Amino acid sequence: MSGFRREHDLLGERDIPEDAYWGVHTLRATENFPITGTPISTYPLLIDALAAVKEAAALANEELGLLTPAKAGALVAACREIRSGKLHDQFVVDVIQGGAGTSTNMNANEVVANRALELLGHAKGEYQHLHPNEDVNLGQSTNDVYPTAVRIATINAAHGLLQAMAVLQEAFAAKAVEFRTVLKMGRTQLQDAVPMTLGQEFSTYAVMLEEDRDRLAEAVELIHEINLGATAIGTGLNAPAGYAATARRHLSSITGLPLVTSANLVEATQDCGAFVQLSGVVKRIAVKLSKTCNDLRLLSSGPRAGLNEINLPPVQAGSSIMPGKVNPVIPEVVNQVAFGVVGHDITVTMAAEAGQLQLNAFEPVILHALSQSITSLRAACLTLAERCVQGITANTEALRATVDNSIGLVTALNPHIGYTAATAIAKEALATGRGVAELALEKKLLPPEQLAALLTPERLTSALPEGPTPQGPTQEGPTPEGPPSAPGDA
Amino acid sequence: MSGFRREHDLLGERDIPEDAYWGVHTLRATENFPITGTPISTYPLLIDALAAVKEAAALANEELGLLTPAKAGALVAACREIRSGKLHDQFVVDVIQGGAGTSTNMNANEVVANRALELLGHAKGEYQHLHPNEDVNLGQSTNDVYPTAVRIATINAAHGLLQAMAVLQEAFAAKAVEFRTVLKMGRTQLQDAVPMTLGQEFSTYAVMLEEDRDRLAEAVELIHEINLGATAIGTGLNAPAGYAATARRHLSSITGLPLVTSANLVEATQDCGAFVQLSGVVKRIAVKLSKTCNDLRLLSSGPRAGLNEINLPPVQAGSSIMPGKVNPVIPEVVNQVAFGVVGHDITVTMAAEAGQLQLNAFEPVILHALSQSITSLRAACLTLAERCVQGITANTEALRATVDNSIGLVTALNPHIGYTAATAIAKEALATGRGVAELALEKKLLPPEQLAALLTPERLTSALPEGPTPQGPTQEGPTPEGPPSAPGDA
Amino acid sequence: MSGFRREHDLLGERDIPEDAYWGVHTLRATENFPITGTPISTYPLLIDALAAVKEAAALANEELGLLTPAKAGALVAACREIRSGKLHDQFVVDVIQGGAGTSTNMNANEVVANRALELLGHAKGEYQHLHPNEDVNLGQSTNDVYPTAVRIATINAAHGLLQAMAVLQEAFAAKAVEFRTVLKMGRTQLQDAVPMTLGQEFSTYAVMLEEDRDRLAEAVELIHEINLGATAIGTGLNAPAGYAATARRHLSSITGLPLVTSANLVEATQDCGAFVQLSGVVKRIAVKLSKTCNDLRLLSSGPRAGLNEINLPPVQAGSSIMPGKVNPVIPEVVNQVAFGVVGHDITVTMAAEAGQLQLNAFEPVILHALSQSITSLRAACLTLAERCVQGITANTEALRATVDNSIGLVTALNPHIGYTAATAIAKEALATGRGVAELALEKKLLPPEQLAALLTPERLTSALPEGPTPQGPTQEGPTPEGPPSAPGDA
Amino acid sequence: MSGFRREHDLLGERDIPEDAYWGVHTLRATENFPITGTPISTYPLLIDALAAVKEAAALANEELGLLTPAKAGALVAACREIRSGKLHDQFVVDVIQGGAGTSTNMNANEVVANRALELLGHAKGEYQHLHPNEDVNLGQSTNDVYPTAVRIATINAAHGLLQAMAVLQEAFAAKAVEFRTVLKMGRTQLQDAVPMTLGQEFSTYAVMLEEDRDRLAEAVELIHEINLGATAIGTGLNAPAGYAATARRHLSSITGLPLVTSANLVEATQDCGAFVQLSGVVKRIAVKLSKTCNDLRLLSSGPRAGLNEINLPPVQAGSSIMPGKVNPVIPEVVNQVAFGVVGHDITVTMAAEAGQLQLNAFEPVILHALSQSITSLRAACLTLAERCVQGITANTEALRATVDNSIGLVTALNPHIGYTAATAIAKEALATGRGVAELALEKKLLPPEQLAALLTPERLTSALPEGPTPQGPTQEGPTPEGPPSAPGDA
Repeated sequence: MSGFRREHDLLGERDIPEDAYWGVHTLRATENFPITGTPISTYPLLIDALAAVKEAAALANEELGLLTPAKAGALVAACREIRSGKLHDQFVVDVIQGGAGTSTNMNANEVVANRALELLGHAKGEYQHLHPNEDVNLGQSTNDVYPTAVRIATINAAHGLLQAMAVLQEAFAAKAVEFRTVLKMGRTQLQDAVPMTLGQEFSTYAVMLEEDRDRLAEAVELIHEINLGATAIGTGLNAPAGYAATARRHLSSITGLPLVTSANLVEATQDCGAFVQLSGVVKRIAVKLSKTCNDLRLLSSGPRAGLNEINLPPVQAGSSIMPGKVNPVIPEVVNQVAFGVVGHDITVTMAAEAGQLQLNAFEPVILHALSQSITSLRAACLTLAERCVQGITANTEALRATVDNSIGLVTALNPHIGYTAATAIAKEALATGRGVAELALEKKLLPPEQLAALLTPERLTSALPEGPTPQGPTQEGPTPEGPPSAPGDA
Repeated sequence: MSGFRREHDLLGERDIPEDAYWGVHTLRATENFPITGTPISTYPLLIDALAAVKEAAALANEELGLLTPAKAGALVAACREIRSGKLHDQFVVDVIQGGAGTSTNMNANEVVANRALELLGHAKGEYQHLHPNEDVNLGQSTNDVYPTAVRIATINAAHGLLQAMAVLQEAFAAKAVEFRTVLKMGRTQLQDAVPMTLGQEFSTYAVMLEEDRDRLAEAVELIHEINLGATAIGTGLNAPAGYAATARRHLSSITGLPLVTSANLVEATQDCGAFVQLSGVVKRIAVKLSKTCNDLRLLSSGPRAGLNEINLPPVQAGSSIMPGKVNPVIPEVVNQVAFGVVGHDITVTMAAEAGQLQLNAFEPVILHALSQSITSLRAACLTLAERCVQGITANTEALRATVDNSIGLVTALNPHIGYTAATAIAKEALATGRGVAELALEKKLLPPEQLAALLTPERLTSALPEGPTPQGPTQEGPTPEGPPSAPGDA
Repeated sequence: MSGFRREHDLLGERDIPEDAYWGVHTLRATENFPITGTPISTYPLLIDALAAVKEAAALANEELGLLTPAKAGALVAACREIRSGKLHDQFVVDVIQGGAGTSTNMNANEVVANRALELLGHAKGEYQHLHPNEDVNLGQSTNDVYPTAVRIATINAAHGLLQAMAVLQEAFAAKAVEFRTVLKMGRTQLQDAVPMTLGQEFSTYAVMLEEDRDRLAEAVELIHEINLGATAIGTGLNAPAGYAATARRHLSSITGLPLVTSANLVEATQDCGAFVQLSGVVKRIAVKLSKTCNDLRLLSSGPRAGLNEINLPPVQAGSSIMPGKVNPVIPEVVNQVAFGVVGHDITVTMAAEAGQLQLNAFEPVILHALSQSITSLRAACLTLAERCVQGITANTEALRATVDNSIGLVTALNPHIGYTAATAIAKEALATGRGVAELALEKKLLPPEQLAALLTPERLTSALPEGPTPQGPTQEGPTPEGPPSAPGDA
Repeated sequence: MSGFRREHDLLGERDIPEDAYWGVHTLRATENFPITGTPISTYPLLIDALAAVKEAAALANEELGLLTPAKAGALVAACREIRSGKLHDQFVVDVIQGGAGTSTNMNANEVVANRALELLGHAKGEYQHLHPNEDVNLGQSTNDVYPTAVRIATINAAHGLLQAMAVLQEAFAAKAVEFRTVLKMGRTQLQDAVPMTLGQEFSTYAVMLEEDRDRLAEAVELIHEINLGATAIGTGLNAPAGYAATARRHLSSITGLPLVTSANLVEATQDCGAFVQLSGVVKRIAVKLSKTCNDLRLLSSGPRAGLNEINLPPVQAGSSIMPGKVNPVIPEVVNQVAFGVVGHDITVTMAAEAGQLQLNAFEPVILHALSQSITSLRAACLTLAERCVQGITANTEALRATVDNSIGLVTALNPHIGYTAATAIAKEALATGRGVAELALEKKLLPPEQLAALLTPERLTSALPEGPTPQGPTQEGPTPEGPPSAPGDA
């Protein structure tokens, strides 16, 4: 039959399109798993990682005398082509598939074999010269190849997220400096509390991201542990002595990653704990980013009937029916990414729990969920930095007015006029709409100069007006003599 | 500039590719939301639903005298083209987007407008003749268009799932009949319990699916309530009198769905409760399907060191390293779909909780999560039916042997020989490896004919050997005289 | 040994405190499951339901001639004592326990047996006269008793929740009437949108609760289906003919609930779908209540640097350090209850998914999670109604001012002055801080009387000033002639 | 009024029972939050931690000259009484409460104050001598006290979990040694794979626990960072210079924990990231433990119609209806604990996401959820170790038989007889029920002595028969010459 070649597996024979680098196992898988419509090529980092593993295995097999230099050379060349971005469209099996990644591994074996066959001067499908399972997969099993490739892909994806978080952190830090003298009311439980600077507020977002980057880096560290050499269940059956170490050495060299082989390969082959941990950390990042975006949306609410403290840069028209409306669409999209990440974490969790005995058959959905989390969070961080945070402006005057007008200011007078007098002033201010300082002066509770000193921004916020990153309470708290009534208390 | 047309919005002017049916608002959105890489055209049912809403609105506006017949006719024609499958590639904004679906609505307005302009003999972009916001979106807001379209798309997606569930139910029901006389041990807590038939076991899977279909149909009923006519916040500002009713009438006619307008449009515009409910029901379906697949994998475990009660049809080679191994890849893929659905439910839940005041801005991620759940579950049901359940065979002899050999059989003797004697036999059977019936005979605890009668499959399983759907306990329980020791108890 | 009686089970003999109504099986369970420290008596509805099941079983066994009237009478009397609130402290096993509720059933069997023995004039532990397993548990299995009791307890708990929701709904509805003429700005995406009344806003909360009550009632309906009579795996082995129907009839009579026996008892015995569904609906209620509380906290933010639209009644001092601060603690506690409910739903979901073959062994944690959800939500609804909603007041003047001052008002002029002019006014208003109406008058875009008519509260909000429940858009939309520019568009 | 004392707060006056150490703020809270019925005294570690914070604050205030030595001495003495276990019943507010822990802090302030008043010779309620807010709470805010106390309580709870995990790890490790020579079939995807030892299988559970302990210890490290000294929002308003450092020093000394003060107190006061991280790690532990228990239940399934590889020690009767049935109730209870932990993680996640601006008001539910997770997991680990793992026995003969009888053995012959011949033998073995070795001998594919050598347990499993912890594949893989056909492949 023209345009096709015939391949067979244990179920029988099938025609494969002549130009396809994949073969019969891949064909079966595409028929068996018409689930999401998303092929594994959607994750190019996974394809690159699979090629890296196959390349490392070929080099190890050559070094151990199991593959001829000719075969090994062709395999290595084929893998490098894939890693340079070629043939990705040949990775066609669905990301969600039964079988612990078997179909992904089979797809990789077939593509590498057929490309290597071409490089050796053979036609695709002439497996008697170089075989997907016997040569490409030599000394391997899906159960060590797939987890190893998923780890490498995830490490590289996570590096992208780390970089995006750094960009966002820098955007917040720059705003923290820009807004370091903008006085405003801090809020607890959405109620007016005590003064702070807008710079302090923005610095917290930068600090959170820095902490989260540290945590993510630690979690990524954990997935540098691979089980290549474990073969089917971790006992290494049919892998030659030295295989695990040799393959790992080549794989580290190819990927530039400090990979280590698990001390207990039986455990490593069944365990998905490091993915659960990583997903948990990614979830942490997501919920804190969501909280940050909730804050940005709240602070920019208005323009007239909202807090109206900051202005997000307009990036598109907000409404087809309401002229001039601009909405906080960038923070909103980040919120939605975060909700997705929390959902994916549950998926990862259930998949990890469902592993049985010597293998977790559900790693494909772990890959799918975790990849989406990491990739979409990365996009969210960059978008938030570039299309929102960098363009935020402050309504400085209005913010200052809320402090002058606030009742919470009385807290600062508390140690000096006593809790009872402070409460009385607070009540009168609330009832009359007048200001706390004005009332304190009127009642001559404090001399004007002391009142003014107590209410300087520096004293109220413990923020140094010149400092780049506003810090904690140590520098500018009340004087150590404390509340006037203290000495005579007993 | 050749090859482009110029459009403007409140942020300024931009060049749009001449052949694009989308316009400047869509361009902004694609730049603002590079999040998932998945365009809304991935959900063709959503595109069709948007076109249906726009068509209904055009007809309502014409009927109410707000649009000329010429404009309305062009809009209707454009919408029908889209509903026939054309121009779907013009729906390019990311499924995850800020703004409560604004960008999706804008994308629809622009594509419909530009196609209608062409039909009217104008060039794309000549909005002075027919305007995306003023004509296509007339009397509408994203806040009523988008939720309405999402509902219609979801109803149609759910119908697909209902049909797939029926196919799967039928597959299980057929096996229930086929296996109705295959005796086996029932298990509780994975421990041998009392006998049943394999038909009874498979009938439960069919019954579960039937119940789940009923629940899904009820939940789908709830999302037939739409808020078209609500405009921005449900007060219907700028929608003419009669608009909601007229548009709903046309929309029902176009879609063939019995849509109803919410009694309180302010509530309807902010509420996502029906989606949470629907997602919860879809999750219920998923977890029960996952449990069913866990059972299938368990029952087919082996072939030598497992339960080996049933055989799943082989659909692909299971291992590249272990010759002849066949794995339960179809049930495994269904498990993974189920884990994804549970994750999506959390995403829907968090998005619904995060709505604020008069609107939920996070409906795009609700659509995304729910669509994936419904679509992948549909695929999973069909795949499970066609590539697994329909080909299942039973190891009838081995199953029968586990019953003959079981200790749990003693439960059936319990009312006749007393709990103490029964326990003694159970212990001896466990210690010696001998059979319960054999021991009971040897000890002359019951005459052979009574023993045989007690141990007939019908009595043990309460299953009628001819009955198509094995039912409950009413027909074949022990005789009403009960345990022999009862009368003298007091 | 004084103060103890000796009991034995298959593991050997143990001393039981003389005054304990529970026995050796309960003792083992308390030793095996020192997990949460929460005894099942924490759920009095469960204890009552267990007693009801045992009473129904005794009556059925008597009716079927399996129990003497003397024994049955003593059992019924013991069960009624328990249902009247006595002996609840004897239900000591941990709510979280292995074994599908076996230990709970054993605990019930022992307490009922020992109390019945006393009533018959025997000492506790003299099981030769009346036996926990052989008499109290006659014709039953944990696998039908426990699920049946859990259903009855859950139905009754849910009734409590339904009543509490009605109280809360009424509180919101009363406020909707009280605030029906209070004009305010509606918001979408936290940005000022178009006007509405505070009454409309509060009416949505009442409507949501009404819908949710309907959904909850439907879900509760589903758990009226019981499997009593199924015995071990649903085949009814050792349950006499007619047992299921007779026991169900007595149980319905005792509980006053319209219980039905499942059509397929094998399916019913392994299925937890109805609990997943119910939990999903309870989750829906929780997230909508959480959204409502988020709104209340947002609207009451301030008093100076917040929206300050409504005032929640102060119920306690808010801060030890900030004089006069009052926090929205009641809505906050409801939020937390909701977060707990979402968590419990995941627990229920995973437990349901983990069922295997003929039984779900994890129903105890389903009971525990679902009970906590329902009970805490009930408390939350009542607290929210009585300590928050009923005392809410509106800052009517300030709210009206936000409308007069709003830019969103221009939306109402849109159909009359055109989108371009409307946009220009919006921009000028934002830049200068002036009002939209003022600018429209100044520019003579509309005669004063038309302007005034367009900006009446009725027209803006479509709300009838006298109507009790503000409804949709039908009555007061713009006139059907539509935007002035429409006729000449083509 | 006899038996009561009168106290007042900003809402008015209330009668407090004379013997109550709590006061009016606590009374209000118990009335406002009748939510779970669980008082904070349920978490004794939290009460101890609160007392430790109050003691450290008193010492710092004395050192800074803000409290007289007499007052400070009385406060310290009262706190030490509480830490020794006294007065815990006075901590009566509900664990779930609005207000970021304000009511818990108020409860602590009142109990400490009243006990200190007694120690100073005053009556309870004579706050003019020593005041709950002004003296006990001096320089503090709920917003730094509560998070600090929650951290300390959680650290101590986590230490308990770490110890329990070590006990369980040791139990598994001991079994790994005991079973190190028990040969069995390894399984992937529940299908027979290749041989391993039962020791290898059990060693994985020990290794998992060791890894998990490391991860938990790292996560606990993160919550040693406290924000004491932050006061209301982290700016340290009203806390004297040096307060944070001094109080931290005393608190470290009192608790024996290496606490550190956060570098940015504004960030620390609003951030719950470390709790999300910790909860994620606890979830990881839970799901792996659940997977382990699933394995144990699977391996012990039977006794006749199951895998029947191992025997769990019977700990209670399994069934009231099936004589002699013993169920895996201990692993089952661990599964349920794990499902609860996953649910709690969602609760923690949502609560963390819901924080707003300068504070997270939802820390009480974080404490509640996390405490339950940690405490129940600790109980689960100990119960699993002591009542299950330590008593597990192996069915060594039956296990060995599954290997001899297995088809998977052919995998070991694969490199020596070729994939084609191996597949043929596998097929014949499956069809005829005969053994792989027997067939290979019969067909003279390998000489008997080589066959025997290939099939030694050591070679098959790569396990050293004497080794204490079976490890990976490095020692005993196939010889480096590899498959015989390799050299001629190209």
